[in-house]
Amino acid sequence: VVEQTLADVGEFGLVDRLLELVGPGRPGEVGPGDDAAVVGLVGPVVATTDVLVEGLHFRLDWAEPLEVGAKAAAQSCADVAAMGGRTDALLVGFGGPPSTPVELALGLMRGLVDEAARAGARVVGGDVVRSESLLLSVTALGTLLGPHPVQRSGACPGDRVVVAGSLGASAAGLAVLMTSDPGLRKQHAGVVARHRRPVPDYDLAVALARAGASAMIDTSDGFAADAGHVARASGVGLVVDCAALPVAAGVAAAGHALGVDPLTWVLGGGEDHAFLATMPAGADLPDGVQVVGEVVEGSGVVDTAGRPLAGGHDHFGGGS
Amino acid sequence: VVEQTLADVGEFGLVDRLLELVGPGRPGEVGPGDDAAVVGLVGPVVATTDVLVEGLHFRLDWAEPLEVGAKAAAQSCADVAAMGGRTDALLVGFGGPPSTPVELALGLMRGLVDEAARAGARVVGGDVVRSESLLLSVTALGTLLGPHPVQRSGACPGDRVVVAGSLGASAAGLAVLMTSDPGLRKQHAGVVARHRRPVPDYDLAVALARAGASAMIDTSDGFAADAGHVARASGVGLVVDCAALPVAAGVAAAGHALGVDPLTWVLGGGEDHAFLATMPAGADLPDGVQVVGEVVEGSGVVDTAGRPLAGGHDHFGGGS
Repeated sequence: VVEQTLADVGEFGLVDRLLELVGPGRPGEVGPGDDAAVVGLVGPVVATTDVLVEGLHFRLDWAEPLEVGAKAAAQSCADVAAMGGRTDALLVGFGGPPSTPVELALGLMRGLVDEAARAGARVVGGDVVRSESLLLSVTALGTLLGPHPVQRSGACPGDRVVVAGSLGASAAGLAVLMTSDPGLRKQHAGVVARHRRPVPDYDLAVALARAGASAMIDTSDGFAADAGHVARASGVGLVVDCAALPVAAGVAAAGHALGVDPLTWVLGGGEDHAFLATMPAGADLPDGVQVVGEVVEGSGVVDTAGRPLAGGHDHFGGGS
Repeated sequence: VVEQTLADVGEFGLVDRLLELVGPGRPGEVGPGDDAAVVGLVGPVVATTDVLVEGLHFRLDWAEPLEVGAKAAAQSCADVAAMGGRTDALLVGFGGPPSTPVELALGLMRGLVDEAARAGARVVGGDVVRSESLLLSVTALGTLLGPHPVQRSGACPGDRVVVAGSLGASAAGLAVLMTSDPGLRKQHAGVVARHRRPVPDYDLAVALARAGASAMIDTSDGFAADAGHVARASGVGLVVDCAALPVAAGVAAAGHALGVDPLTWVLGGGEDHAFLATMPAGADLPDGVQVVGEVVEGSGVVDTAGRPLAGGHDHFGGGS
């Protein structure tokens, strides 16, 4: 059996296959296949967009297409959840060379549909184009479930800093994958799986918003960098007790095996898509949330000994 | 003065410059700079996404960055208008290599902001990533102004086929650009300008929806191909009087100069972003709309002599 490529089926052929996979719109809505989708959202719309490029944001020798698609959806749905919202609809842009196997494109879309369903959403529209590198653009549209949008800028001195979810697994998994050692990959399959497909706890983020979170962000750039974003946007300082940070299962073991301090991954590793929130003194914390520090007057993010937290990265390898 | 690149300013440096250009969100909304934007849309949301890649969808040796950005926005806003909607918000994904001049990225965004304003919208969010080729993803979110979404599938036998806007300028301009002849480019500057930056009449599309359009599409793939989309989705045939098609200014002259039948561009050329609609017998036609044919029982798109209309293209150069 010769594998079909995009050149074989053409743009419209691929679109037909993708539409079949995604399914029609809900009654009263307009699903994929027209000029635009029409989605029945109630109230203010939460909207975010992400672009992912092969070789930079994902590698298909390290993950199945389904995992890559699911991770792309998770990234956008986590952004909606970090505002206190639930994702209702995804729009997906797909680009690839004519030599791309049709099954690969369908696998990516299966992952997007799968993670969308986990978040309470479905794919309602998209675009298919030719491009040199494989690429995905994912736009998530959602509804606010909290009393108001939870921004990065609302943290106040006296608030507790909390984390929903665990940290370090994605970076640990990436480090294991980079060794190219099949034994290590097998031994540390848990963190590798989390690198390939993060599983954000969307409901817990919404619970934090409903409990009165003053600020929230998902840890996509890494805990230290994302804590820095909150501190900067809010005009406050954050003091973090590193010993209290929720370290993901398998991170310590991977650190031991690779000779890396797990805290490097916990503080500096991106793509965990946990949620960092600040909670006013009176707020009840939902179950499963970890208190990791407090908001203070000042600026920057430090540990309990006053040392700046290291971590984060810049996609252009540049300055400032 | 050494030109700054993305590598010089870094991802966060570029984001800061783009945020400055785009401006803050409206009161009560969340604009760019947080995990997600929050937009106060009323009623069902019209949503569409497009991906554009340098070398395939645009060439920066043929157009200014501002024109490329404006064209990208126009493409998505025209899709919203073709449903009978007005675009309220754009989300923009930008990808480029570290060597990309900052001014180029800012120029693209200026064009996006400019065309968004022409459509009644603003840029509310986005993403900046590294990629080998320059790329843009544009998502448009809008509000329905017509009584219901105007889909491709509503055309009925007996309806008139109408066009809002004119046809052929984009393809004629492209043909002139491809000659690389500075004299021709100057002589046919009008169609070249339309190729670089189409100016869809968003209001006229909304007027068609309000007047009761049974189906509508914007001519992005070319009139013949887009008429085919409507015929297929509606399960009808379209008979088009080619002599009645509104040929854009300058198309006939460019055809004469290049020895090309202008009808080739009028029927086959994409990216004019005119609007093709079908109007029930009783509907009043808004001013500026041209009747070009009628909907009949059957299938396919033919001229008044019964010959199939040629045109359209496939982005993967593929079959089916």
